[in-house]
Amino acid sequence: MVSTDDYDVLIVGAGPSGLMLATWLAKLKVRTRIVDKSSVKVLAGHADGVQCRTVEVFQSFGFAHRLVDEGAHINEVVFWQPSANGGLERSKRTPDNEPGTSRFPHAVLGQGRIERFLLDAMKGFNDLTVDRAIAPTSLTVDPALVDDFSPSSYPITLTLRHLTEEESTPTQVGAVPNGLHRSNLLSDDEADAMHGTAAGGAYAGAGQEETVRAKFVVGCDGARSWVRKQLRISLEGEAANSVWGVMDAICLTDFPDIRLKCTIHSKDAGSILVVPRERSYVRFYVQLGTTEPGQRFDRSSVTPESIIKRAQAIFAPYKLECPEIEWWTVYEVNQRVAAKVTLDNRVFIAGDAFHTHSPKAGQGMNTSMMDSYNLGWKLASVLAGKASPSLLSTYEEERHKIAKELIERDYTLSRMFAARPKEEGGTGEGVSHEDFKKFFQSIGRWASGTAVHYNPNLLTAPERETSLAPGLPHGERFSSHGVVSIADARPWHLGDRFVSDGRWRVVIFAGDVRESEQRAKLDQVAAYLDSPSGFLRTYTPADDDLDSVVEVLTVISNPRISVEPNAFPDVLWPPLKPWGSRAYDKLYADDASPVTPNDRGEIYKNLGIDPKTGCIAVVRPDQHVSLVCAIDEVEQVGDFFSRFMIPPQ
Amino acid sequence: MVSTDDYDVLIVGAGPSGLMLATWLAKLKVRTRIVDKSSVKVLAGHADGVQCRTVEVFQSFGFAHRLVDEGAHINEVVFWQPSANGGLERSKRTPDNEPGTSRFPHAVLGQGRIERFLLDAMKGFNDLTVDRAIAPTSLTVDPALVDDFSPSSYPITLTLRHLTEEESTPTQVGAVPNGLHRSNLLSDDEADAMHGTAAGGAYAGAGQEETVRAKFVVGCDGARSWVRKQLRISLEGEAANSVWGVMDAICLTDFPDIRLKCTIHSKDAGSILVVPRERSYVRFYVQLGTTEPGQRFDRSSVTPESIIKRAQAIFAPYKLECPEIEWWTVYEVNQRVAAKVTLDNRVFIAGDAFHTHSPKAGQGMNTSMMDSYNLGWKLASVLAGKASPSLLSTYEEERHKIAKELIERDYTLSRMFAARPKEEGGTGEGVSHEDFKKFFQSIGRWASGTAVHYNPNLLTAPERETSLAPGLPHGERFSSHGVVSIADARPWHLGDRFVSDGRWRVVIFAGDVRESEQRAKLDQVAAYLDSPSGFLRTYTPADDDLDSVVEVLTVISNPRISVEPNAFPDVLWPPLKPWGSRAYDKLYADDASPVTPNDRGEIYKNLGIDPKTGCIAVVRPDQHVSLVCAIDEVEQVGDFFSRFMIPPQ
Repeated sequence: MVSTDDYDVLIVGAGPSGLMLATWLAKLKVRTRIVDKSSVKVLAGHADGVQCRTVEVFQSFGFAHRLVDEGAHINEVVFWQPSANGGLERSKRTPDNEPGTSRFPHAVLGQGRIERFLLDAMKGFNDLTVDRAIAPTSLTVDPALVDDFSPSSYPITLTLRHLTEEESTPTQVGAVPNGLHRSNLLSDDEADAMHGTAAGGAYAGAGQEETVRAKFVVGCDGARSWVRKQLRISLEGEAANSVWGVMDAICLTDFPDIRLKCTIHSKDAGSILVVPRERSYVRFYVQLGTTEPGQRFDRSSVTPESIIKRAQAIFAPYKLECPEIEWWTVYEVNQRVAAKVTLDNRVFIAGDAFHTHSPKAGQGMNTSMMDSYNLGWKLASVLAGKASPSLLSTYEEERHKIAKELIERDYTLSRMFAARPKEEGGTGEGVSHEDFKKFFQSIGRWASGTAVHYNPNLLTAPERETSLAPGLPHGERFSSHGVVSIADARPWHLGDRFVSDGRWRVVIFAGDVRESEQRAKLDQVAAYLDSPSGFLRTYTPADDDLDSVVEVLTVISNPRISVEPNAFPDVLWPPLKPWGSRAYDKLYADDASPVTPNDRGEIYKNLGIDPKTGCIAVVRPDQHVSLVCAIDEVEQVGDFFSRFMIPPQ
Repeated sequence: MVSTDDYDVLIVGAGPSGLMLATWLAKLKVRTRIVDKSSVKVLAGHADGVQCRTVEVFQSFGFAHRLVDEGAHINEVVFWQPSANGGLERSKRTPDNEPGTSRFPHAVLGQGRIERFLLDAMKGFNDLTVDRAIAPTSLTVDPALVDDFSPSSYPITLTLRHLTEEESTPTQVGAVPNGLHRSNLLSDDEADAMHGTAAGGAYAGAGQEETVRAKFVVGCDGARSWVRKQLRISLEGEAANSVWGVMDAICLTDFPDIRLKCTIHSKDAGSILVVPRERSYVRFYVQLGTTEPGQRFDRSSVTPESIIKRAQAIFAPYKLECPEIEWWTVYEVNQRVAAKVTLDNRVFIAGDAFHTHSPKAGQGMNTSMMDSYNLGWKLASVLAGKASPSLLSTYEEERHKIAKELIERDYTLSRMFAARPKEEGGTGEGVSHEDFKKFFQSIGRWASGTAVHYNPNLLTAPERETSLAPGLPHGERFSSHGVVSIADARPWHLGDRFVSDGRWRVVIFAGDVRESEQRAKLDQVAAYLDSPSGFLRTYTPADDDLDSVVEVLTVISNPRISVEPNAFPDVLWPPLKPWGSRAYDKLYADDASPVTPNDRGEIYKNLGIDPKTGCIAVVRPDQHVSLVCAIDEVEQVGDFFSRFMIPPQ
């Protein structure tokens, strides 16, 4: 019997990473608890940038529109440099993302609102809410149970302490809301001072404790992660810091690009990054200094007024007044990444617990959410007995590479941003404005989150020598393009069909099925899919709909009206429960809708797929492409699934 | 002192028309009460089609995405006719709407869901909810107060009866949910049988009564409207009925177009209209017979089985099985419209109380909501003392024309639909399939709701001989196209800026402001707008933001980056409270965003506006165009507003 204190997954920390994981697990109906030491969620400030790829993930959960409606949108980046006459001048405008990067914009909205969307989603999916003012005080893993995935096995035991109001309310320094109580500093001092030591010291008697068991624990508990400390995982990377002031303010200015993302390199006053925000706010990042290893920056010297003063000097000769400051903080940046991210694939860390870096590339919140988006469906698959626990190793393989890329690029960006501008053509120290621009542009697609590339592993097949779909590299997220539904003529972005519901998708780019040879190949695919040894029948429980584990979508290259739904083999649009109505929404054409004839998505052309012969793409529950094979190689898909999928008992 | 039983507007009836009005009034913070005699809202069946124009209005309230996500989309209409070999064949496919009709699809979703969206919106805007199980039993208007618009004047007194559970729960005929308790029949018998007579008969003692006063009452209480009866308004139009069966069912069929909107004219078995629905349902309309005036159709002969049987005969040789029926009804159609729609512009009727007709053109729910969308902002303007009560006369002028057009077209459509098919080229009785197709296509734009055209009146200027913007006819809704925001490079559909918030909009199509002559004209417009005699200063309270009564938007034809926001006169992007931050969102260019360079909206070209000289368009709070004038005729806009706007006291 399962006691009420046993959980499949216990999440420590309800920031973006923890909430994304909770949202995923709620959607997949996993028995989850999420605790946070703070009694209140973030309201103002903190992270803000939401990259295109993250918006795609929000779309897959159904709430992208909330972000798109509320957020400021970043469409252009402008580089400003000192002008010959002692002022400032634009040196370049560039699109924030290359056209075609994503169907969604890069949006900016306060972390508190992002958390609100996730909180609402997890509540809606499975009535899951955050247990606040709770901190873990002990964590033990029973080595004898680590490899026991039977339903009654709970290898992890935690003690959770219910904090007092005093303990769990962030302290505030100064009158203007700021981030000083939970800045990005990698010191545990503040946390310990607030909540007592991890072993349960100063406040041990203040609240009650409970003991719970879990199959998995995920530490999404920030840069000073308690979970990471229990796992004795070290951080690797730079120890030297640069110190930055950050501020969300209303700006009255004659600077013309205050609603665009700008970098301004002044001649003598330093550099500033300007990011427009929702509700007419603007975020500034201003460099305040650097510290050497072991040195501490004297934060008491920094005030909102001093940040504004520095910004005014950089903006000159443009005027700048800030009549309202919503939030500000000081952070000392160092680029560090955890040496490993799991203990026995039972306890994991994600988000800031995993990697710390500057916020200037706008990656922190995004990478943190994508960590747990990578992990969530894997946990759920293993818990449901649908996939081998070997799947879990791919979390570290995949995300550690991404974290290291982040750290490396952020290191370069921070150094370039912090350096004194070098005269064009000059020698000596410093970074030329030209070099800075070049680097900034070179990381564009990376910064959008759409370039994340996982290396070949259990879930990602090696790339074949000549790709059948150059636009769908193995290991990258499926790049969406428009198609039209054959049965109802509705235009869709194919990516909007990749809902985050835990299902794999196999997209059959069937080519031109008017050609009898190609049509015969499609019939062979269908015969395989419908056979007892095909992956659909092998992995789908007999009582479930045939699309419940792997959803097969077919996209033909010939015009919609050149083929009837009835002409497709049954297995490609199977009857569904409870009434046996046909799944008309599985069949698409590379064509336009009659109501929007000029909006043809050209998915074959855009993905580089041969419109005669097509191909087959295997897409993970997190929308990454695992494998592309030829249409007469469909058994490769079965072989692929057989590496980790478990048939129903 | 205002007692708690006084309301600015009392709405009788919480169907689509009443709820749209309540949503509008909630948004505009009008003191509103909405009552409905039924204890429960509609759950299944009833109306379902939501035309493009209605989706635009939903967008202006912020919930279009809910409909677009949940609804089935209608993209194509297919006409089927008897084939030479005794079967059926497609005679034509046509886009459901002409490409470019609207930026939104024609969607289909059950009335219960539409009502849910409206209920959620009115709750969100002003915490307004429906008082259910309440019916008015008396209504009196004090003639002495009809023209008294002082705050303390409440000319209308109503008695409201709180119904018992028995009275307020719709009775159900048969096992499958159906519409027989509230069909479109114009008989008051059923209502009286259910709730007692209007004077308060059979159930008078069953519940409590309350007396309330109101400044305005709007009867949105359906085809058997109690309010209309109090006003002794007669219905005009046809008395002869045709009788139809309607059903929402799951369909198992090999008919290939079951997910498209289809008309099927069979050789001998009659005609059917097929409309795909959400959740894999399909709606059928099947003709069952006709009745002469005074005759009653024997509904007891109609069952779900008999409707299916008829449908099967029409579908033959295609197979059709319906394993699940969600809802069905029988209706007898007659086309009738109320002779007038108001008593002294204090009591109004809207929706089915105003016009009754067949559902086959998909207009009922749409026209009903558009009635009250037309009325809502006018009531609010008069109540706020911002507009002369003369504004209210435009409701009848505008909507009576629309209702009559609806009745006329529906009459023709119903007759054509019900007629026996005539052999092509034959003489004799009946309607040829060719004629039917032609008529159906000819009413396409009308059916989308975007062709609604109000004649010149207080709010609609007569068209000039040579229009400055052929795409913006006076009296029609503003046809939206893409623009780009100058300050932040964000692509917008200009229509998405026309939020339903009660404000008028003046769009200055400024032309090419790089030309000094044109720039001088824009400066003159700005000087007028900024002057004490200009309409902005005249009608905006001194303490309010300058965009709070009329929002001025500027759209230039030259490229975005050819002009700085700072280059625009202050009044075109005024500082806003509370901090004096500039309204950067007032300035647009006919250009593409850098992230979507191929999506240029070409608003000048699409609206037929000269890109050198531009024009000025005045747009009502309900998005209809009142006036287009030349850029050097801006004082005409002031003259226009002076006809009905009232300066602040």
